Amino acid sequence: MDDRVRRHAETLVDWSARIEAGDDVIVSLDEGTHELGVAVARLLGERGANPVFLRQSGELTRAYLHGYADFDGEFESDPAHELALCESADAYLSIRGGHNTTAMADVPGETRQAHAKATQAIRQARLATDWVSTIHPTRSLAQQAGMAYEEYQDFVYDAVLRDWESLAAEMAQMKEILDDGEEVRIVRENTDITMSIAGRTAVNSAASVAYDSHNLPSGEVFTAPVADSVEGEVHFDVPMTINDTRVRDVHLTFEAGEVVEFAAAAGEEVLADLLETDTGACRLGELGIGMNRSIDRFTDNILFDEKMGDTVHLALGRAYDACLPEGESGNDSAIHTDMITDVSGDSRLEVDGEVVQRNGTFRWEDGFTA
Amino acid sequence: MDDRVRRHAETLVDWSARIEAGDDVIVSLDEGTHELGVAVARLLGERGANPVFLRQSGELTRAYLHGYADFDGEFESDPAHELALCESADAYLSIRGGHNTTAMADVPGETRQAHAKATQAIRQARLATDWVSTIHPTRSLAQQAGMAYEEYQDFVYDAVLRDWESLAAEMAQMKEILDDGEEVRIVRENTDITMSIAGRTAVNSAASVAYDSHNLPSGEVFTAPVADSVEGEVHFDVPMTINDTRVRDVHLTFEAGEVVEFAAAAGEEVLADLLETDTGACRLGELGIGMNRSIDRFTDNILFDEKMGDTVHLALGRAYDACLPEGESGNDSAIHTDMITDVSGDSRLEVDGEVVQRNGTFRWEDGFTA
Repeated sequence: MDDRVRRHAETLVDWSARIEAGDDVIVSLDEGTHELGVAVARLLGERGANPVFLRQSGELTRAYLHGYADFDGEFESDPAHELALCESADAYLSIRGGHNTTAMADVPGETRQAHAKATQAIRQARLATDWVSTIHPTRSLAQQAGMAYEEYQDFVYDAVLRDWESLAAEMAQMKEILDDGEEVRIVRENTDITMSIAGRTAVNSAASVAYDSHNLPSGEVFTAPVADSVEGEVHFDVPMTINDTRVRDVHLTFEAGEVVEFAAAAGEEVLADLLETDTGACRLGELGIGMNRSIDRFTDNILFDEKMGDTVHLALGRAYDACLPEGESGNDSAIHTDMITDVSGDSRLEVDGEVVQRNGTFRWEDGFTA
Repeated sequence: MDDRVRRHAETLVDWSARIEAGDDVIVSLDEGTHELGVAVARLLGERGANPVFLRQSGELTRAYLHGYADFDGEFESDPAHELALCESADAYLSIRGGHNTTAMADVPGETRQAHAKATQAIRQARLATDWVSTIHPTRSLAQQAGMAYEEYQDFVYDAVLRDWESLAAEMAQMKEILDDGEEVRIVRENTDITMSIAGRTAVNSAASVAYDSHNLPSGEVFTAPVADSVEGEVHFDVPMTINDTRVRDVHLTFEAGEVVEFAAAAGEEVLADLLETDTGACRLGELGIGMNRSIDRFTDNILFDEKMGDTVHLALGRAYDACLPEGESGNDSAIHTDMITDVSGDSRLEVDGEVVQRNGTFRWEDGFTA
């Protein structure tokens, strides 16, 4: 076994999910993830935890959803056995991989949405555990990234096998700036946007449930802007895939928090559909600062893309509760779609008028002042 | 997809497990069973059932058990999440396959037994559902059977894709004879054994939960002898694998129900260990008549071997409750090990002194009388 697989498992079990003796753990294994699954199984044994292994597969889900289309009835709400499983679990490790990222391409959007809607309580139960999402590098994900298999493995392990304590310490500086700040401004070509973050709490997303962070790799600091406060225009030059469609060069204009104009060089129709999902879909739910510089290129996988060093992302849709004052609800929506801007070139990120990041360099890196 | 895979899924879901709309179903998928899994997923959708897919894997289990050996503690009893899952399920479809039938060969027997003992309530919960075990033909199982892959596929589908209603009707005749009978005698070379079956109920094992039958394929009629009544000697000329060891030509002598002498041409030590498991291990728990003539050879897989046409098997150990009068308990043991005798040659099976099967032919097939 590649020693990096074993170290990935250790990072997942110990640093990310903080598994302890007696923990009841669900391990969801996608196709092609057996090797990491075996390494995780061994560690869960060593830690005295109790695993249940689930099979995740786009092809199984596709077959089930297509089958249901021939059944004369509606999806049952939150089947009791799956709900009981998730409600009784302490942690949920989702190991994604797969052999075809478009395995579900011919399942109608309405069917996927109806099924997602019918299983909301199960999803809530899963999110109430110490859950962590990661990936095992498969050839299919390498293909999605446009990379050779071995090249992609190197990329993934560079991003995952970080010194997370050290990165967490660096990111804590950004969290402190955002927690103390009231207004954020992002300026670069075709972009000048401001938003209030007053009263909001940033998450130092250091790839561990101990940091309210549930992705491995992570490496971003994010908060929830006050949705109505967003003003200005923003250009997202990093491409993305929405519902199996490539979308490029999205340009959005906000007034009083709402998207009032939109355009895209490719996939504009998908963007239009997205904005019509519900009222929350044309408002921002997240401002995130990508700080994992081991992620140095776009690989068409949001788990990685949004953490890319020297990028900023804004998400249309749902805000994360962790960023909101106790009892306050943020922007609500059925969607949460991240859009990314490269800030490595001529650009600046300001908080309360002070420059925090300029041309991809943070204030604490070269001590510049506004 | 091979049309036989689709028909296997239909037999499993409709004939065997009798899945209905709203059923909460667990589908446990071994390595290499994806194709049958997809066919089952589609059908579960068509029937309006709710599947949870589990990953079964000797390699995952091995890694976990080896890991646990490094943990300073004992296996926890029946982890809550897995117990809740099984207790809330209506049906459990176990699809075995795998890439290596000896994947767990280096896990010490005590470790396997300790883990099995710690998860008894989970196993009971599983057995309380409408559970069915089947296999998807993998190259590993073909190898275990000593067959080419395509040859093995033909063998498996011949055994599984039977006209089960018709076989059930034929087997009903044997069930009636055993239900009415009081004493069974089996005579062939090196074999003359008698046992009481008075008051016991035979199971017409027609591969459906509607028949108290939980194997696909099935095709046997079995009952529980009165353990203390077994007298005589029996030779098992069909080989078997016990704890990864090949055992051949077992010869047992019974007095007052107990094994008083034993021998084997190969694996005698494993046999000796088996008999020492507990007091029930040297008494019989089952008498079974193999009646699936599509299973025409030994393939070293008990799911198939014990149903082979023109064979009789006796099991050391635990009796099945379905064969016992209400409230009565049968022979109890941690083991249930089937041993098989070929009765296609010079042999006879008698019930209350009347010949029921002679040289592999049943009474109703040629009308012979004792």
